[in-house]
Amino acid sequence: MALRYLSQRLAQQIDEELMSQNGAFSIDQLMELAGLSVSCAIAKVYPVRSYPRVMVCCGPGNNGGDGLVAARHLFHFGYSPSIFYPKRGGKELYQRLVTQCDNLKIPSITDLKQQLKQTDLIVDAIFGFSFSGKVRTPFDDVIQAFEETTIPIASVDIPSSWNVETGPEPNSFVPSLLISLTAPKLGMKDFKGTHYLGGRFIPPALAEKFNLNLPPYPGTEQVVDITGIPVLTEERL
Amino acid sequence: MALRYLSQRLAQQIDEELMSQNGAFSIDQLMELAGLSVSCAIAKVYPVRSYPRVMVCCGPGNNGGDGLVAARHLFHFGYSPSIFYPKRGGKELYQRLVTQCDNLKIPSITDLKQQLKQTDLIVDAIFGFSFSGKVRTPFDDVIQAFEETTIPIASVDIPSSWNVETGPEPNSFVPSLLISLTAPKLGMKDFKGTHYLGGRFIPPALAEKFNLNLPPYPGTEQVVDITGIPVLTEERL
Repeated sequence: MALRYLSQRLAQQIDEELMSQNGAFSIDQLMELAGLSVSCAIAKVYPVRSYPRVMVCCGPGNNGGDGLVAARHLFHFGYSPSIFYPKRGGKELYQRLVTQCDNLKIPSITDLKQQLKQTDLIVDAIFGFSFSGKVRTPFDDVIQAFEETTIPIASVDIPSSWNVETGPEPNSFVPSLLISLTAPKLGMKDFKGTHYLGGRFIPPALAEKFNLNLPPYPGTEQVVDITGIPVLTEERL
Repeated sequence: MALRYLSQRLAQQIDEELMSQNGAFSIDQLMELAGLSVSCAIAKVYPVRSYPRVMVCCGPGNNGGDGLVAARHLFHFGYSPSIFYPKRGGKELYQRLVTQCDNLKIPSITDLKQQLKQTDLIVDAIFGFSFSGKVRTPFDDVIQAFEETTIPIASVDIPSSWNVETGPEPNSFVPSLLISLTAPKLGMKDFKGTHYLGGRFIPPALAEKFNLNLPPYPGTEQVVDITGIPVLTEERL
């Protein structure tokens, strides 16, 4: 058993195939299932009784959207989430996801440092597999806070600021939980923390086409623990 | 602990509020979570090792859409679903849900009676809370097959052909599992079989507004067993 870790290009291609007319998924569907799987992984690793106060930090793209969905499900699971969403994405979907959280009275945070004093767990939903280049304001301050805090961090798909293919820089923060979506990305291959996989919606034909070698999910779970499962090396592809 | 059972009008009103700009849910989101909860309830009551072959019978509306989503998740849970969808709804969403099942090579059935010979469980996703009046062709034959079979039937939201508010006629089939969505409907109040509730997305403010008195869902589950929980009588509302 070994898992294929995806290049940025391949991750984008799989995403496009899922949402093309042939794959037929809407972004609403995929984001709902992705965000749900994030919240399920968090509930397994950071139980609500010990980590009730979860600050979900959202970026302007789809990774942030996954975070908004996760915040909503975490609320229904009994957590007290808050949302830090300093640069809101323009898509109508994101606005609706915010409204759904507003309807649950999930607080929107403006002062990150103040909120860190009353947070048991941080969800990093800033950047996903499309990220490249340098972290720009206002997210540079957020990443710096992640580097300085001792609060555990759960990263969605990739730890924000890490290169999707080459991984962390020397001073990058390291999350204690990583929830890869669909399949892990190449830059995660030396990650040693707790690692879950979510996104239980890949058709077997698509998984075969790209040699994803996905692990079986248990029962009706939306996530599977892939901590310690080796990386499929390129020679074996 | 007692549950409020909804009139048809109230069920429609709650659905509209969830999807209005204020509730902000898209039909894609709600149907995904509803269908997922249906598949989770089935997996609890009819484990895959004993009931692998599931025929999902879908009607032309949203209840049929819930069935299509459930069929997809049942496939991912290891079942061998098939789909009987004799009168396809026109919405683009339904077409995409069918394509998603086609991509999993879930067979589409045309001969219901033949398929019954190789089926361990029937999912009744023909009509939902909008149903009224008489069952018309081609569904009269389907309901008759439900009345004659000894295969267990899991009904989505209401057993098809039952009146949403007054319940079954003398010769109506009785499902062995009922999965109510959001809240049970009035016509189900004398149902004695296994009864699950799904649709873990109602904001507490909405539940309070309509005195839904929803039960707590366990852990990260998408369903809760409400078998035997009494009905909230009108005097107590």
